[in-house]
Amino acid sequence: MGNIDPLQKINGDFKGKDILSLTQFSPKDIEKLFNVTWKMKHLASDNRPSLILQGKIASLLFYEPSSRTFGSFSSAMMRLGGSTIAIQNPQAVSSVAKGETLEDTIKTFENYCDVIIIRSSNVGDSTKAAKAAFFVPIINAGDGTGEHPTQALLDLFTIYEKFGSLNNLTGLLAGDMLNGRTVHSLIKGLSLYKNNTLYLLSPMNLKLKKDDLENFRKSGIKIIEITSEKEIPKTCHFWYWTRVQKERFTSLSEYEKVKHSFVLTPKLLEQFGNQKMVVMHPLPRVGEIKEAVDSDPRALYLTSQMKNGVFVRMALLALVLGKI
Amino acid sequence: MGNIDPLQKINGDFKGKDILSLTQFSPKDIEKLFNVTWKMKHLASDNRPSLILQGKIASLLFYEPSSRTFGSFSSAMMRLGGSTIAIQNPQAVSSVAKGETLEDTIKTFENYCDVIIIRSSNVGDSTKAAKAAFFVPIINAGDGTGEHPTQALLDLFTIYEKFGSLNNLTGLLAGDMLNGRTVHSLIKGLSLYKNNTLYLLSPMNLKLKKDDLENFRKSGIKIIEITSEKEIPKTCHFWYWTRVQKERFTSLSEYEKVKHSFVLTPKLLEQFGNQKMVVMHPLPRVGEIKEAVDSDPRALYLTSQMKNGVFVRMALLALVLGKI
Amino acid sequence: MGNIDPLQKINGDFKGKDILSLTQFSPKDIEKLFNVTWKMKHLASDNRPSLILQGKIASLLFYEPSSRTFGSFSSAMMRLGGSTIAIQNPQAVSSVAKGETLEDTIKTFENYCDVIIIRSSNVGDSTKAAKAAFFVPIINAGDGTGEHPTQALLDLFTIYEKFGSLNNLTGLLAGDMLNGRTVHSLIKGLSLYKNNTLYLLSPMNLKLKKDDLENFRKSGIKIIEITSEKEIPKTCHFWYWTRVQKERFTSLSEYEKVKHSFVLTPKLLEQFGNQKMVVMHPLPRVGEIKEAVDSDPRALYLTSQMKNGVFVRMALLALVLGKI
Repeated sequence: MGNIDPLQKINGDFKGKDILSLTQFSPKDIEKLFNVTWKMKHLASDNRPSLILQGKIASLLFYEPSSRTFGSFSSAMMRLGGSTIAIQNPQAVSSVAKGETLEDTIKTFENYCDVIIIRSSNVGDSTKAAKAAFFVPIINAGDGTGEHPTQALLDLFTIYEKFGSLNNLTGLLAGDMLNGRTVHSLIKGLSLYKNNTLYLLSPMNLKLKKDDLENFRKSGIKIIEITSEKEIPKTCHFWYWTRVQKERFTSLSEYEKVKHSFVLTPKLLEQFGNQKMVVMHPLPRVGEIKEAVDSDPRALYLTSQMKNGVFVRMALLALVLGKI
Repeated sequence: MGNIDPLQKINGDFKGKDILSLTQFSPKDIEKLFNVTWKMKHLASDNRPSLILQGKIASLLFYEPSSRTFGSFSSAMMRLGGSTIAIQNPQAVSSVAKGETLEDTIKTFENYCDVIIIRSSNVGDSTKAAKAAFFVPIINAGDGTGEHPTQALLDLFTIYEKFGSLNNLTGLLAGDMLNGRTVHSLIKGLSLYKNNTLYLLSPMNLKLKKDDLENFRKSGIKIIEITSEKEIPKTCHFWYWTRVQKERFTSLSEYEKVKHSFVLTPKLLEQFGNQKMVVMHPLPRVGEIKEAVDSDPRALYLTSQMKNGVFVRMALLALVLGKI
Repeated sequence: MGNIDPLQKINGDFKGKDILSLTQFSPKDIEKLFNVTWKMKHLASDNRPSLILQGKIASLLFYEPSSRTFGSFSSAMMRLGGSTIAIQNPQAVSSVAKGETLEDTIKTFENYCDVIIIRSSNVGDSTKAAKAAFFVPIINAGDGTGEHPTQALLDLFTIYEKFGSLNNLTGLLAGDMLNGRTVHSLIKGLSLYKNNTLYLLSPMNLKLKKDDLENFRKSGIKIIEITSEKEIPKTCHFWYWTRVQKERFTSLSEYEKVKHSFVLTPKLLEQFGNQKMVVMHPLPRVGEIKEAVDSDPRALYLTSQMKNGVFVRMALLALVLGKI
């Protein structure tokens, strides 16, 4: 918000900051956020309603379908006593249908609320929104193939919670590395720490762009691209599986060809996994993890990974709104 | 929720139970629910806000249009200080659009809330949802031609409130007996009590299925099928009128033929009604009750029947969430 | 609500009144409303949550897209601790899709809430709603080319806040005078006061209807129609710019011809404006005010005009619900 750089570093102070990209966070910022996330988790187990955001309003402008992120942010506001104004599909139900620019929509809604959470299919829309806003912080809830910082933060928190550190980790990322927004953000996040190694398993035509790969490597993380499940090392701390995203394809036949390239089954887990690892997925899934895996205690995607999403967002909202 | 039978009996304890069907309720359970419903009604007349569900969140997953049930459940949560996450038409705005299964959607949303209220056009979806849920109770808000238990409960409460008992009643059900979900649930409800007689008035091709009829009769209720208004007995305690549901027909001409088979007019009420009876309808109506009937003091469908819907749902939510 | 005239005068007492048209307001009523609006503005700067509408529910029935009015009313309820049941596009998601009348929808929803806010594209729908309602007040949030009283009230408040009076003003209204609902309501509002002069700048085919013009003039306001920017007097207190509304045109080419007849630029402001004036617009805009004007301190449309919308609606809701 304001005339300042929307991508400015958090630098220890979340209050009033736009949250657009993981690049704004230092390991210290993440640590601060995770400490508050812990508090939120305890608060929840307390079973007493929190009212620290009572009287505060979040606008959720969701230009792209996403019940999950929508539900998670809604829950986070409400769990802290706040309220939400939900505009789903503004192309159809709002002034956008009358030809209004994104900037005007943002400048309007900031008069109605204390924070705007925006989801869009266009890369850069959240930055555009942050530049337009005068008064209230903007939170990027996913912009096309761009970033989805709160997803990365909840993923990092889930790993951190399990292993007590974000250094010295080995992980497997599987699925669509080319268009996978959550994968990009997660690699960025782990790049901030030391001595991490990532194996990227994807079909040939869904590998990382060369530029992206080089940039990540420069940032110090070790990346090894693999194309067969047989190359998965036994030493992984986590497997992070992802969906091949139909909505990023222009040709349906191209999509059909690769959508089930890699499917996580109990057998695969037995062959290449280990007992201490965890299995994650940003969801939704469309067949790339078999349901038989769900009841495995290492499978966190339907339980703590998702719950952590609410806690991280609670922490972030409380910090950005200066209430903690 | 959990691995237990979703259709388990209430057996005096509502806390954490899925509410999918009237078959879960004994007369004692209904009595308990109605006692709390009375408390809710008093609370409302008190005009002081209740906060017993403050901090609690209900997700409303409405796969089928229903502003009425949606509004009633929303109101019930809010009247008790709770919040709601509303997903209307998830086919369009959510991960369902990306190919997610109902089970995954449920497993996701239970991380965001304390109870899930589901409305669907597919029979059995709410049971499917209850089997999928680990942590939170599922409430069936209508599944296709299946059940709509809270509608039946509010109908029963409205009759109970008027006559002080659910035994020894004579009632008329008119309209679509074949597809009418609310009618099925109401018959089930009244079957739990003693010495009740129901006259079913419907076009020939919208009569109860033979199997259904026999099952109901076995349960002890007396059912008399009639096809002409002239057969309505003068002794009814209630008339329960229903809409012929266009959305259940595959042929429009079939629908047009029968939609206005039986229309409730002031004249009909004068000819075959009596002074102590009440007139009910689950709404919406599309012409089968004339508006001239609305101002008749016996017509409860736009007033106490609807208000009772909110009170019954308040009671149910408070009980299921263990807050009363 | 009730059987009484929905268009009855406020006459000093807002409690339980329908708010359908500016014609219900006397200058004294407006003064009362503005005094409460001031209080709401102070309350906001206090930064403590208000709970005066805690436990109260507003239903927002929006039959026509309008994220702005929707967001503003939602915010107003929530800022006072109230809740909202939002039905956007009821044609698709509600019983309306099953053929229900507007009257039945209203009679249903009043059982769920304390006030109904309705937006429609049909003139007279809000009056129809008010006639149908038994228990709760109806607020017109815009009905087609009819009225949009809260928009007029926020416009009046913005002018009043700046100039300390609503008498002795000279204003310019530019754009679509024929279909412009907000313009009609604003003229009505200023007609209630003394010695006001309005210049109406519009393309020939978007001038006021002759009848409307005569009626306004009879009410005592001085109206001067102009067709060129060169005729704008230097003495205006406010310029009120409006959008040519595409959705009111049946022919697209007719719309294209006139949509950018008058565009407000920094240059125009320099040539014909003065230093004390303010620039207003109900928004959304689609090019008729250049963005270069936004940073001009006289431009209030993206800032205090919009914020005042929330404060006026907070005041109105608190008054109508009898809580202040």
